[in-house]
Amino acid sequence: MESTTSNPTSTAAAELLSGVNAKVLLDSVDAFLFDCDGVIWKGDKLIDGIPETLEMLRSKGKKLVFVTNNSTKSRIQYANKFRTLGLSVSQDEIFSSSFAAAMYLKVNQFPPQKKVYVIGGEGIVQELQLAGFTALGGPEDGEKRAQWKSNCLFEHDKEVGAVVVGLDPDINYYKLQYGTLCIRENPGCLFIATNRDSVGHMTDLQEWPGAGCMVGAICASTEREPVVVGKPSTFMMEFLLQKFNLSTSRMCMVGDRLDTDILFGQNAGCKTLLVLSGVTTKSILDDPSNKIQPDYYTNKVSDILGLLGE
Amino acid sequence: MESTTSNPTSTAAAELLSGVNAKVLLDSVDAFLFDCDGVIWKGDKLIDGIPETLEMLRSKGKKLVFVTNNSTKSRIQYANKFRTLGLSVSQDEIFSSSFAAAMYLKVNQFPPQKKVYVIGGEGIVQELQLAGFTALGGPEDGEKRAQWKSNCLFEHDKEVGAVVVGLDPDINYYKLQYGTLCIRENPGCLFIATNRDSVGHMTDLQEWPGAGCMVGAICASTEREPVVVGKPSTFMMEFLLQKFNLSTSRMCMVGDRLDTDILFGQNAGCKTLLVLSGVTTKSILDDPSNKIQPDYYTNKVSDILGLLGE
Repeated sequence: MESTTSNPTSTAAAELLSGVNAKVLLDSVDAFLFDCDGVIWKGDKLIDGIPETLEMLRSKGKKLVFVTNNSTKSRIQYANKFRTLGLSVSQDEIFSSSFAAAMYLKVNQFPPQKKVYVIGGEGIVQELQLAGFTALGGPEDGEKRAQWKSNCLFEHDKEVGAVVVGLDPDINYYKLQYGTLCIRENPGCLFIATNRDSVGHMTDLQEWPGAGCMVGAICASTEREPVVVGKPSTFMMEFLLQKFNLSTSRMCMVGDRLDTDILFGQNAGCKTLLVLSGVTTKSILDDPSNKIQPDYYTNKVSDILGLLGE
Repeated sequence: MESTTSNPTSTAAAELLSGVNAKVLLDSVDAFLFDCDGVIWKGDKLIDGIPETLEMLRSKGKKLVFVTNNSTKSRIQYANKFRTLGLSVSQDEIFSSSFAAAMYLKVNQFPPQKKVYVIGGEGIVQELQLAGFTALGGPEDGEKRAQWKSNCLFEHDKEVGAVVVGLDPDINYYKLQYGTLCIRENPGCLFIATNRDSVGHMTDLQEWPGAGCMVGAICASTEREPVVVGKPSTFMMEFLLQKFNLSTSRMCMVGDRLDTDILFGQNAGCKTLLVLSGVTTKSILDDPSNKIQPDYYTNKVSDILGLLGE
């Protein structure tokens, strides 16, 4: 029988979620923080048993929060996606890395007369605009091309004071060049990454390059390292704590990625539950090269229903 | 007066090229290895005094070799560019990183039935084909787009055994995804970078993102490090030595970049001459954070003419 004692600071091997420790976990936390991709859905497909599990947790008075590194959507667009999948989740319960990027600028008193260049999707542009900032680039620059000829000067806006880089399905040389010139040539220009995930489940069948790919490109061309606002950075945690008036030790982060979700939870002092329904397999978890051990692991979120006999 | 003794292994500050040490340098080397961009030309514009300087060196019996990290052209295309600029340089005198990528596969006995996926320009594709390999991707995939929808499987060729990444003006998500899937999913697939220059002078007015940008993207999405065949890797030196039957101690590498050209020369045991006609300024050279000191430095290659009174 597995031990039922959770120890968030331990590097001991993760415990398989069981009837006994699932009950302990539930009793010891007031809020569950869920990653979305690979936990709630894969691509546009809901993972088995999610509606019932979320309903059970809400019925037990648990706060539910959805923390996603995917920046292609804004919080409004995420709330719509939840609704489309038959889940009732409000915008206030969603913390996306697109929102985090806008909040980072807000918290750091980014001058409103300055502009933000976006390498990424509509989600980032929307969140920046909702926060009162002027966003350039994003999907609008998807078809633009740099002229490759002698004596060509590539003009960039000298008022750009921050470049936000996230997952960009329409990445091109023009955007890489624009962002690079802003960071290299505009004095004090910030370089903000929504997240650095190497790959992600944009479909349920395959892993495709994630935001880390675009961020890696800009790191190389600028010789700079970004401020990361998504997981595993705990930047978003400040907002969560303020909003829900909770203690991190009474939160459980549920995710499918060791290096973002589980590390984020551990960095913040939360309990952590790894689900194997996304990018991490049991053999990755058990590999000696893996140094990140969650408190618990299970196949999928809804296992908790069966384990608790709900 | 500056010392006239060259010491390739020293980390002492570079000497300004003078009448005295220019003569010592000329007498002590049999071959000059030139970088092109920022040394011979900037964009499509020849740098002042180049034809006369090259002619003088040839008249003194010096071997001239052109070693460029720019992979967008093949050696045939480079020979044409030299001709267009009024310089008589043969294909055999040109060592481009596109050629180096093909030679790397040849030397490492890459199976000819396997295929090579190219993120980069026509130069790489041409060199691979000239070496007898089957190249996929490159400019041909410039307009392709990945489908971003649920249940979409992105098909990639399982016979791809190497991905070559260089500067790509037509970079897009499709290519990043194709290269990423080959490296992540095809067993033993090689990841070869032509070079990792962060920026380059594609025009004479500005620095634009270089091959390092695309390489950084693939490093991030694959969580792998590439084999680099261009400068500062000394892979190309084997060919040079074999071809010209020279000793590296009797060669001088002339370049505008500390971290590629000068490091390449030093790694190979050559003398090194930095010219300030490209990306490196005197203040970068003198900055305490710079650990790479060439033997000599001067403003531009043709200074040597005046210093020798030619």
